[in-house]
Amino acid sequence: MRHAVALAARGLGRTSPNPVVGCVILDAAGRPAGEGWHQRAGGPHAEIHALEQAGERARGGTAVVTLEPCNHTGRTGPCAQALIAAGVRRVRYAVPDPTPAAGGGAATLRAAGITAEPGPCTEEATAGNIAWLTSVRHGRPHVHWKYAATLDGRIAAADGSSRWITSPQARADVHRLRAEADAVVVGSGTARADDPHLAVRGVPGARQPLRVVVDTEGTAVAPGARILDDAAPTLIAVADDRAPALPGAELVRLPRAATGRGLDIPALLAALHRRGVRSVLLEGGPTLAGAFAAAGAVDRVTGYLAPALLGAGPAALGDAGISTIAQALRLRVTDWDRVGPDLRVTAVPATVTAPVPTGKES
Amino acid sequence: MRHAVALAARGLGRTSPNPVVGCVILDAAGRPAGEGWHQRAGGPHAEIHALEQAGERARGGTAVVTLEPCNHTGRTGPCAQALIAAGVRRVRYAVPDPTPAAGGGAATLRAAGITAEPGPCTEEATAGNIAWLTSVRHGRPHVHWKYAATLDGRIAAADGSSRWITSPQARADVHRLRAEADAVVVGSGTARADDPHLAVRGVPGARQPLRVVVDTEGTAVAPGARILDDAAPTLIAVADDRAPALPGAELVRLPRAATGRGLDIPALLAALHRRGVRSVLLEGGPTLAGAFAAAGAVDRVTGYLAPALLGAGPAALGDAGISTIAQALRLRVTDWDRVGPDLRVTAVPATVTAPVPTGKES
Repeated sequence: MRHAVALAARGLGRTSPNPVVGCVILDAAGRPAGEGWHQRAGGPHAEIHALEQAGERARGGTAVVTLEPCNHTGRTGPCAQALIAAGVRRVRYAVPDPTPAAGGGAATLRAAGITAEPGPCTEEATAGNIAWLTSVRHGRPHVHWKYAATLDGRIAAADGSSRWITSPQARADVHRLRAEADAVVVGSGTARADDPHLAVRGVPGARQPLRVVVDTEGTAVAPGARILDDAAPTLIAVADDRAPALPGAELVRLPRAATGRGLDIPALLAALHRRGVRSVLLEGGPTLAGAFAAAGAVDRVTGYLAPALLGAGPAALGDAGISTIAQALRLRVTDWDRVGPDLRVTAVPATVTAPVPTGKES
Repeated sequence: MRHAVALAARGLGRTSPNPVVGCVILDAAGRPAGEGWHQRAGGPHAEIHALEQAGERARGGTAVVTLEPCNHTGRTGPCAQALIAAGVRRVRYAVPDPTPAAGGGAATLRAAGITAEPGPCTEEATAGNIAWLTSVRHGRPHVHWKYAATLDGRIAAADGSSRWITSPQARADVHRLRAEADAVVVGSGTARADDPHLAVRGVPGARQPLRVVVDTEGTAVAPGARILDDAAPTLIAVADDRAPALPGAELVRLPRAATGRGLDIPALLAALHRRGVRSVLLEGGPTLAGAFAAAGAVDRVTGYLAPALLGAGPAALGDAGISTIAQALRLRVTDWDRVGPDLRVTAVPATVTAPVPTGKES
């Protein structure tokens, strides 16, 4: 199953709005007979690739697949039927399919006399498919917030200068994150200060994400902005009482936030979800990131921390509606590494209870 | 030599104002015959311990020592003479002794016909003795700034609450840093907000550091403050026009900073140096840390980063006189690790040039 999870990961950034899936077929004697992964939306599912490679050797064998085989006819036929037709005797699936349309594959297999069992590697396979699972469970895209800051948490100096806080290696790493996302989102502050391009560069075979600017007043993106070129599609989200003219970009009008600052984040995410966006890389500055955090819409955080100190300048995260330590958004570190001279820390919201204050200690 | 460096480290926090030193004696055949380290100021030097253990086996052998053997009679006799008397034929020393009083041991050895050579492991031995070497070179204590912050660089929430940002494991680790320092320094903000105790707890055999509060106006430490107990000596640094009455603490009056905010940091460090303080753990909040950074008096930084986000609240480092990215205090990460759920990052000022801005990229 571990190999199937690794196979699935090869599809990251290319299968949306579908999940990533990997599949290994073992023959009746337990020897590897075929493998495959879902390579792009509209293309064959992982099981079909793997069954094709296994051919007759699939008969009496086992299918090891990272997601419960689908049960419906979408752009491709149902995988459950293909597995039955191929004569496999047993199916292991790491994660059950939670969608009403495609779920139920295991039941179909069992009805055909095939042993269909969940697991192993449920946790790894869930993590590998977290964007798709989040979008299915919450009806909104998975949000991965990325920031680059000094050790003292500054994303720019007092005068606003920020080129460059992190190393070329860290900046190249961000393109990998962009390539895994369906959309890259920034706010008006970043659009105004950096005139960012936001397309993926230096990642062979990458699909360009949708570039999104949350430009509430419709004033931050001016004609001629780099984001308006044809390197990738661009969407400008403005308040529903605004109508800027921006050739080269699509506009979406959304309600303002109830707080009066910016757009309503759930409405923004719903609009992106309707467009098929299942995963968002949020590169927006402190204000937009704070709004996402306040809306409970940060599912993963990657911080690139440069070994540098500034002592002044904007912090990585702005107002998120947190006023006291007990309300802190607690995370759990899932990955941490050096990237060139910098550190990269990845974390997800913690599900455990935050530590309780216990008197004086220092 | 690597073993000698490890032996030297056993003395950390106990030898001040002396350096830490480790020594291994090899017999004429190159076999280990004795080892020792400098255990406390006023006690025998590392070489004496090692020679004692080696006895007659030192004759014709080699002494491997982390610092050039001393040449003067202080509270103990000169090690160069002891090595000559023991009949060693060769001395390797990782780092030359830069002090006018004790230096010159290698020349004395050579004059006695002994081969005395610098190296190997100069870098490791320098790092291990950095506090002492800094104090000798700059005439001020080595300053190790420690802070605990969220991933977005906050040391407290908007309402000032900060118990606890980091884990019990991280807070215990701080006591290890305190035990290695001659003095622990905080500012008036920390004294007022946290009523800190600052003594070492939970480190077996630790020597208590001098507790220092930089309390410019003499108003932050009130009678009854925890820092005024008898767990460790306490020094309150106030402006030279102030004279608070604080039984239980020694006062030192110092000039105010030229900026008009706080005390003059070089004067503070000189006062500590005169008292024999060779290493300072700076636990002070953002204002004091900013003043130290502005004075170029931060020699090492250890950040405990909690996987949490606040979005508001004070940042780890306050105004350090840095207004644009090119002036950023660039560091080099020397160590990074998990401490419980938190990350610990240690860095020292970089000697390399900071990256030069090279146009737009993002």
